[in-house]
Amino acid sequence: MPVARVVVDVMLKPEILDPQGQAVANALPRLGVTDVSSVRIGRRIEIDFAGEPDLDRAREIADKLLANPVIEDFEIRVVESAAAEVA
Amino acid sequence: MPVARVVVDVMLKPEILDPQGQAVANALPRLGVTDVSSVRIGRRIEIDFAGEPDLDRAREIADKLLANPVIEDFEIRVVESAAAEVA
Repeated sequence: MPVARVVVDVMLKPEILDPQGQAVANALPRLGVTDVSSVRIGRRIEIDFAGEPDLDRAREIADKLLANPVIEDFEIRVVESAAAEVA
Repeated sequence: MPVARVVVDVMLKPEILDPQGQAVANALPRLGVTDVSSVRIGRRIEIDFAGEPDLDRAREIADKLLANPVIEDFEIRVVESAAAEVA
């Protein structure tokens, strides 16, 4: 059965400091990488719906359970099927 | 200046248990959501390059700093510009 998958990307708002991303950015010169200007680390949540994907429902889930709207922005999109996004 | 942004999505491999995602899935019925079959939570990392985005370089960064290849898969893609992905 094809799975309807909704992906929620949660990132810190641009004005909020991201120490975790900064730590990665600071480690890059040791790998010989010097042309990276910024690293930001957020969360990616995959929600599989048993039937039709429900974007409004997903938005409610993101707003209440997944993101802190004070410091985070989120973005929601439907991906075609589970198989389409497997690496 | 347009920023060349590479996005790295890091997710636990499908066979690895995701207690954090499971906790969210278990909380959904309290929100009245009953048609979600699975929730998986991973990381999304945005790497901004000062010049041309370098996918090979980004892959090396992901492999060495961002993902644990024993339990995680990652996927890399270039997004057009920083502005294109702002919510």
